[in-house]
Amino acid sequence: MSQTRQEKDSIGYVEVPAHRYWGAQTQRSFTNFDIGGQRMPTEIIRAFAILKKAAAQTNVALGVLDEGKAKLIGQVADEILAGKLDDEFPLVVWQTGSGTQSNMNVNEVIANRGHVLAGGSLNDAEKALHPNDDVNKSQSSNDTFPTAMHIAAYRMLVDVTIPGVEQLRDRLQAKATEMMEVVKIGRTHFMDATPLTLGQEFSGYVSQLNHGLKALRNTLDHLAELALGGTAVGTGLNAPKGYDVHVAGEIAKLTGLPFRTAENKFESLAAHDAIVEAHGALKTLAVSLMKIGNDIRMLSSGPRSGIGEIIIPANEPGSSIMPGKVNPTQSEALTMAMAQVLGNDVAINIGGATGHFELNVFKPMMIFNFLMSARLIGDAARSFEENCAFGIEPNRKMIKQHLDNSLMLVTALNTRIGYDKAAAIAKKAYNEDTTLKAAAIELGYVTAKDFDAWVKPEDMIGTL
Amino acid sequence: MSQTRQEKDSIGYVEVPAHRYWGAQTQRSFTNFDIGGQRMPTEIIRAFAILKKAAAQTNVALGVLDEGKAKLIGQVADEILAGKLDDEFPLVVWQTGSGTQSNMNVNEVIANRGHVLAGGSLNDAEKALHPNDDVNKSQSSNDTFPTAMHIAAYRMLVDVTIPGVEQLRDRLQAKATEMMEVVKIGRTHFMDATPLTLGQEFSGYVSQLNHGLKALRNTLDHLAELALGGTAVGTGLNAPKGYDVHVAGEIAKLTGLPFRTAENKFESLAAHDAIVEAHGALKTLAVSLMKIGNDIRMLSSGPRSGIGEIIIPANEPGSSIMPGKVNPTQSEALTMAMAQVLGNDVAINIGGATGHFELNVFKPMMIFNFLMSARLIGDAARSFEENCAFGIEPNRKMIKQHLDNSLMLVTALNTRIGYDKAAAIAKKAYNEDTTLKAAAIELGYVTAKDFDAWVKPEDMIGTL
Amino acid sequence: MSQTRQEKDSIGYVEVPAHRYWGAQTQRSFTNFDIGGQRMPTEIIRAFAILKKAAAQTNVALGVLDEGKAKLIGQVADEILAGKLDDEFPLVVWQTGSGTQSNMNVNEVIANRGHVLAGGSLNDAEKALHPNDDVNKSQSSNDTFPTAMHIAAYRMLVDVTIPGVEQLRDRLQAKATEMMEVVKIGRTHFMDATPLTLGQEFSGYVSQLNHGLKALRNTLDHLAELALGGTAVGTGLNAPKGYDVHVAGEIAKLTGLPFRTAENKFESLAAHDAIVEAHGALKTLAVSLMKIGNDIRMLSSGPRSGIGEIIIPANEPGSSIMPGKVNPTQSEALTMAMAQVLGNDVAINIGGATGHFELNVFKPMMIFNFLMSARLIGDAARSFEENCAFGIEPNRKMIKQHLDNSLMLVTALNTRIGYDKAAAIAKKAYNEDTTLKAAAIELGYVTAKDFDAWVKPEDMIGTL
Amino acid sequence: MSQTRQEKDSIGYVEVPAHRYWGAQTQRSFTNFDIGGQRMPTEIIRAFAILKKAAAQTNVALGVLDEGKAKLIGQVADEILAGKLDDEFPLVVWQTGSGTQSNMNVNEVIANRGHVLAGGSLNDAEKALHPNDDVNKSQSSNDTFPTAMHIAAYRMLVDVTIPGVEQLRDRLQAKATEMMEVVKIGRTHFMDATPLTLGQEFSGYVSQLNHGLKALRNTLDHLAELALGGTAVGTGLNAPKGYDVHVAGEIAKLTGLPFRTAENKFESLAAHDAIVEAHGALKTLAVSLMKIGNDIRMLSSGPRSGIGEIIIPANEPGSSIMPGKVNPTQSEALTMAMAQVLGNDVAINIGGATGHFELNVFKPMMIFNFLMSARLIGDAARSFEENCAFGIEPNRKMIKQHLDNSLMLVTALNTRIGYDKAAAIAKKAYNEDTTLKAAAIELGYVTAKDFDAWVKPEDMIGTL
Repeated sequence: MSQTRQEKDSIGYVEVPAHRYWGAQTQRSFTNFDIGGQRMPTEIIRAFAILKKAAAQTNVALGVLDEGKAKLIGQVADEILAGKLDDEFPLVVWQTGSGTQSNMNVNEVIANRGHVLAGGSLNDAEKALHPNDDVNKSQSSNDTFPTAMHIAAYRMLVDVTIPGVEQLRDRLQAKATEMMEVVKIGRTHFMDATPLTLGQEFSGYVSQLNHGLKALRNTLDHLAELALGGTAVGTGLNAPKGYDVHVAGEIAKLTGLPFRTAENKFESLAAHDAIVEAHGALKTLAVSLMKIGNDIRMLSSGPRSGIGEIIIPANEPGSSIMPGKVNPTQSEALTMAMAQVLGNDVAINIGGATGHFELNVFKPMMIFNFLMSARLIGDAARSFEENCAFGIEPNRKMIKQHLDNSLMLVTALNTRIGYDKAAAIAKKAYNEDTTLKAAAIELGYVTAKDFDAWVKPEDMIGTL
Repeated sequence: MSQTRQEKDSIGYVEVPAHRYWGAQTQRSFTNFDIGGQRMPTEIIRAFAILKKAAAQTNVALGVLDEGKAKLIGQVADEILAGKLDDEFPLVVWQTGSGTQSNMNVNEVIANRGHVLAGGSLNDAEKALHPNDDVNKSQSSNDTFPTAMHIAAYRMLVDVTIPGVEQLRDRLQAKATEMMEVVKIGRTHFMDATPLTLGQEFSGYVSQLNHGLKALRNTLDHLAELALGGTAVGTGLNAPKGYDVHVAGEIAKLTGLPFRTAENKFESLAAHDAIVEAHGALKTLAVSLMKIGNDIRMLSSGPRSGIGEIIIPANEPGSSIMPGKVNPTQSEALTMAMAQVLGNDVAINIGGATGHFELNVFKPMMIFNFLMSARLIGDAARSFEENCAFGIEPNRKMIKQHLDNSLMLVTALNTRIGYDKAAAIAKKAYNEDTTLKAAAIELGYVTAKDFDAWVKPEDMIGTL
Repeated sequence: MSQTRQEKDSIGYVEVPAHRYWGAQTQRSFTNFDIGGQRMPTEIIRAFAILKKAAAQTNVALGVLDEGKAKLIGQVADEILAGKLDDEFPLVVWQTGSGTQSNMNVNEVIANRGHVLAGGSLNDAEKALHPNDDVNKSQSSNDTFPTAMHIAAYRMLVDVTIPGVEQLRDRLQAKATEMMEVVKIGRTHFMDATPLTLGQEFSGYVSQLNHGLKALRNTLDHLAELALGGTAVGTGLNAPKGYDVHVAGEIAKLTGLPFRTAENKFESLAAHDAIVEAHGALKTLAVSLMKIGNDIRMLSSGPRSGIGEIIIPANEPGSSIMPGKVNPTQSEALTMAMAQVLGNDVAINIGGATGHFELNVFKPMMIFNFLMSARLIGDAARSFEENCAFGIEPNRKMIKQHLDNSLMLVTALNTRIGYDKAAAIAKKAYNEDTTLKAAAIELGYVTAKDFDAWVKPEDMIGTL
Repeated sequence: MSQTRQEKDSIGYVEVPAHRYWGAQTQRSFTNFDIGGQRMPTEIIRAFAILKKAAAQTNVALGVLDEGKAKLIGQVADEILAGKLDDEFPLVVWQTGSGTQSNMNVNEVIANRGHVLAGGSLNDAEKALHPNDDVNKSQSSNDTFPTAMHIAAYRMLVDVTIPGVEQLRDRLQAKATEMMEVVKIGRTHFMDATPLTLGQEFSGYVSQLNHGLKALRNTLDHLAELALGGTAVGTGLNAPKGYDVHVAGEIAKLTGLPFRTAENKFESLAAHDAIVEAHGALKTLAVSLMKIGNDIRMLSSGPRSGIGEIIIPANEPGSSIMPGKVNPTQSEALTMAMAQVLGNDVAINIGGATGHFELNVFKPMMIFNFLMSARLIGDAARSFEENCAFGIEPNRKMIKQHLDNSLMLVTALNTRIGYDKAAAIAKKAYNEDTTLKAAAIELGYVTAKDFDAWVKPEDMIGTL
């Protein structure tokens, strides 16, 4: 019994593993692009399943496809969405830049699996469905792949990225509220500065994430535009009238998301500015999260010879050689992941900028990076919340010790005695390793009583 | 006669050029940071002038500054805005990361110039204005510099970037309309594809720029938030109650732009996500413009051995050795500038991600890059419009020749005879260097009459 | 029967899948870092196997480990290298930034598997090997992980990257030789220019790759330095005297590569400049390959309405909608992969720049990107050679047509009649759509005989 | 009296400021490229002066230029090198991507100024020198501009970058030696770790810079290759036999640097991999310097509530609001500048990757970024040395306090009592806020005598 069967495309015959649903074009790509090993993301395959189903329904509605064929297509699409055919999509990201080969992979699997579902055999010469003429009907890789990009990107953002960031934002907000009265030394230039509360400090992180979420949501509108209906070059050749609007509606129904047909299909095929734009918001979130991750790392440093103003959960032994060590590992995972997002941003920019004429051919690379970033942000924010932020507590002993010693409390005297005299006090205290109060009195600029009345950390934290 | 005079700050005395209005701290920075040569952007100095004037007015309104002093401050600020004191700001970008030294430069120049305006001499021991206690009253570098960043960034976007892009967008729209009926070959994968019109092709560029402008406008709201009132660490220490709201209102009045006080000042000092976010939109525009610049470059290639479907203005001799050569120089300037923007984006990301605790200290670098990018986009788009896009004309001879020969017209047959037979026709025509029609007839798949009826480029451009 | 067993580390007990060799710390990481899904690269796990074996042998040689234990360690290491334990390393890249958890994963698997090899059971309270005291003896994650990074990186470069690039370089060299006499039009600014041969054009690519290979080889010396022996902070605490030199020698023997101990271990733990430096060479190769990939894509454009001067192999149907289309898919895969490398470079830079004090904690992210890039370059270059470059042929018809029409042949007249008159000829020919010769004669600048003698493309290609 | 005069090029007449030496093509560029304001770097103009002089000498030697003309060219070149004609080069970076316009700017200024030096007037119809036929003889912008790039880049590296980094390296080496015995706590993961000496810590920085300098020097060989002689497309058309070798020799003589003619001129015009490669080394140095700058910033943090183990010079008042504040401003300038270098790297990569066919047209942008980076590294390293590193002193009080308290000294017990018991001691001491010794004794794992004998920070710093 043969372990391969022959499949045919417009170039000729190819041997394909006998039990696989894919066909000649998938096999060619599998052979010709033995590069790197990064598979086309599952999210793209699933997005294709959605759009193939929507396309088939639309083709029926517009009278260009037999209803039986559409039903078969829909059945296989549902199997793909249920994860039953995951092994049938072996192609890597580093293939043709239009993603044609993954589109054909989906077309072939649907055609062959549909034929089997209809009672046929993979070895039949004639199949119930033709990958191009039926499954790909009224479509081109050039409009399906960018449609799948938008579906997959949008879904990832609303399913993973935004919920993950919101989960962390909510936790930080709760911590900010909890610790709103914990007065501590501020730090500017990494140096001691005037006081604020730990809650105020955390409120800045919350504000960053709120702004980042808003920026990200601003980009969803462009992602909601679908290329489908543009076919080969954006003109809609071979698609029936009204196809684009109808199919976008079907996709919106299937996903529950506000997808609509793109006003200008030439842009949708030739450029992926929506991906570039949305990743611009993702990189903004990455920048915010890197700042937050670093701050938590540094605020928790110690336990005895660092800044040590917060305590973070000890989730695991920190060192293979230093017993008892606890490390800010969630900060590390978070900041590593955000560095990755910042790198991915550059790859996406280059891909986006290097399209030519009617088709950008950096599509698989762009969406590979986009989905990686979107997932990393969502996952890492969630992991950081669940394994670190939830358990952050103030280290009141260290906080008090730092606050009491701070020379920058002298700033409270500016409005009383002027900047220059206040500076002289701070300098004297520093040089003589004494307290501000002692220096102030010795210089004769302030009385002890006034000093006590004027220099109170708890009065220096504003009402902001 | 001495060529320097002595100036003093809290560290001690410094020799300063006798005729300069700047003081000790400016001089120290000038000496200590002999790096690179890139001056703090003028736009930042002007933004400082606006905010110093607004701060003085607010201080008067809230009863903490003498009206005479405020008037002096305002007078010098107006001189700065009029460009009369440009030589008084010699500091470079590569200074302290809070921009304190440029804030003090402004404070010192205002104090000293104000003193002179009030009839004093630069050599007077006592001055009419104190740079810290008066000019910087209720302020810190930590809230003034980010305020100046937002003022300068916002103004550049609305004064240069957006108008420049709109000018180009409008021209491309006009060209798209003009050339909407010029049917030409499409190109996908840089290879011949099905037809579209030159106007359709250009409409994609218009759509890109419209989306980019929208994305950019989405980021203005975050830039409209001002840090002023947060003072040293965001708590507003030493600023009177209500200061932040009032001063933002003054700035809004002075600029005619919708500035408002930031809801969370801790974010405003510690992070510059608004800059990162807005530059994320700028880099999206850069990606779009690079695509457009490349397409125009390639579409105009030739004159005899390229694609040559459009003719661009010949503005200058193209070569020092090849006589008569015309080159797409505006495309080159545009795409070089956009590559710069993509690099600047990374510098901004790194700066934004590397803030610590209450203060980001990559401020001057971030705004230097932001302003460079915002100006480059606006200027390069305008230059491209004025020197190239305005004069683009179709090369009808080349367009017709390419269109008539195209094998991809065969796509029109898909819906008549199926993909496989259509492919066979195209292959035969290619291999035998003949026409599609001849191949179709010889293969017996289509009659001559049907071919002529079915394969019409002008019917293949859709109604999109 | 229980499906988990209990494992213990210094923090306490953890449930671990009963059949797995990993222990408590691996399980904790698996649970606590549910991020992204990118596994720690196999190459790192294999590199760990090499170094654990070398460390054990060194420990025996220096008298601090029992020979029996070392033998067990070596046996498991060999199993890892043979790929027999691949499923035992489930951890992702986004873990602790020192890679401690993967180091402990290896330590635990070796200890437990070694215990089983020694006849024990996974449920035994006492094991034949202790993951820290035996397997990790004289080591720390802080020196093992960077050692594994260098081993994995070096091996990837010499096994995949360099051979792949050389294979392509050799093919391009062969093509350059084959086509050295094929005179064609040159293009500068994407516009027609003076002639060169197709072989000369390809020789530029060869020169680029030769320079790139040299640049890459220049970086191997830094990668040859191993951190092992530095232990926790670079001082070598708890490692016996001479350990570092000895263990580097063992690793050199096991790998056949010129590894040596790093002269300065503080750098080796705290910074990964060797990775940054070597990736700087990789990105240079990426830049070269992107240029080459683009040129091939554009030179092969057409088939009828492009530049079309070379013919590339038709490996697969190019379009799901346009029958008979052939696309430069290998160029697309290559350039997409190189865009990825340029993005990875930024992630690596950020990671490298953000280390603090005695330990850089962006290690897993850095090596993840490095190995991805190194493999992508090697694989994509090889794939491009095997599926595209090998079959490149000149399209002599198009080449001749372009050459004969070129206006830039006029450049040959510069040295005869001067630049200005030559320019006038070219302009006249262009404006009147005639030949250079006709224009030259009509202007009276050159006789027909002189023109024929002076303007010969085959004389314009130099002897370079 | 007219304030302009007419100048002519192959396109026609242009009005030029009457007193300027530049001609028609400069004026066209000045008008047509009103973008951004970044002037073509002076270093490029000077490099052009060198190569024009060398080219003229070579043309004489090879018999194609009159000696008198060459002498005139050399005289003007010397004036340019002396900085006497700086105002004659008004063009910006954002011009034609080949730099043709700056090449012509130099050609025109040399021709016109030479004519004046020869006794002529700017208004003469006939000039002593023709910008193309004489000054540009045997050259093209396409080979002169890349030659100027290499000359300018190489000179900047050896004149500014390398000396600056060496100056800092030497200072850090001296500091390392000075502080080699100062035992202090180490920090990994930003957390307390086992001890090392301050000198050891600094030795890591020295090692980084030494490796970085080596990496940079490795790239000089590629930069030493000169394009000159390739003329328009690399074939050397219109240059006499032997020209390339001869002119490279002249340039080597004039600069005292080991320039030689490029083996392959096609690469030299079409790609700038030497620039990409060398900037890859610059970015590696930037990564090192960012790490060093951050460490110094953090080590000096405080003065009372930070890590505070070193004292850095107080060069200026640190705050406009907080009196007496001292900040790590040199670290800030350094790290900002290095962030810029990392951004510039991306711009250079994109430029390098986007060349087409025989000519890369991102030349001015690439060299603009390269020179900025090379200068920033050299300047910032020098400034950091002169204003910060030279004055670094250990803060022995803080160092001792941190060291004495450190729980990670427990690591010394690993080899005595095993990792698990050592971990229990550290945990107990941490949880009960007691000393390691007390915890060890209470647990009964170590006697007081053994503890004192075994746990000695000064014995834990190795001999590395």
